Amino acid sequence: MENENIADKKFQKEINSGTAALVLLATLNQSIDQMYGYQIAKHLEEGRDEIPMIKQGALYPVLRSLENSGLLQSLVEPSVSGPPRKYYQITETGRDTLLRWNDIWEQTKSFVDSIIEGGKND
Amino acid sequence: MENENIADKKFQKEINSGTAALVLLATLNQSIDQMYGYQIAKHLEEGRDEIPMIKQGALYPVLRSLENSGLLQSLVEPSVSGPPRKYYQITETGRDTLLRWNDIWEQTKSFVDSIIEGGKND
Repeated sequence: MENENIADKKFQKEINSGTAALVLLATLNQSIDQMYGYQIAKHLEEGRDEIPMIKQGALYPVLRSLENSGLLQSLVEPSVSGPPRKYYQITETGRDTLLRWNDIWEQTKSFVDSIIEGGKND
Repeated sequence: MENENIADKKFQKEINSGTAALVLLATLNQSIDQMYGYQIAKHLEEGRDEIPMIKQGALYPVLRSLENSGLLQSLVEPSVSGPPRKYYQITETGRDTLLRWNDIWEQTKSFVDSIIEGGKND
């Protein structure tokens, strides 16, 4: 039914926008090289058959927000095949933040799962 | 540092707003009785020492949104001790939706964890 799809899409979108910053920070933390948006999008799709959890267009505002918060830094370089590319790299602040965000993610999973299972964290 | 707190709070807030609808739907699915906002907030705090993941004030817009989507229904009843209370109950559509949202939540955890671990879902 149409209504099911609307409610599911809204939920999926909200949950993805919450986790997108963590996913991007973790991806850039593991990359030896700087990465540009399209590269990151391709990396997130690798080995996955299903629809990407984060659409490519949704990456850019999150990357910009992480840069504005000092968690990423960027470098614009000319490209032979098109417009200049903006390469992103994680900063030291970004690495420190990622450690804390991993904890927040673990606590959130534990809280949500305890509610779903009807149990309590005691 | 101040900046750390700002980035962490923003991340925590975004991740909570993504999971709040799931948490409320799951809570009302398990409740035999109808529940009003303050009761739900207290239930979510039970047995937890830490700061509540979802603040009480943040519950109400999510409850209203779930009702507007037909996943909850409500009944306003007078209260002896104050203003009338709005009691919420899950609908059949809500129960069906919760099953699908549980799947979406499992997929999201699996995706995010695979990125954090630097692995691939293949």
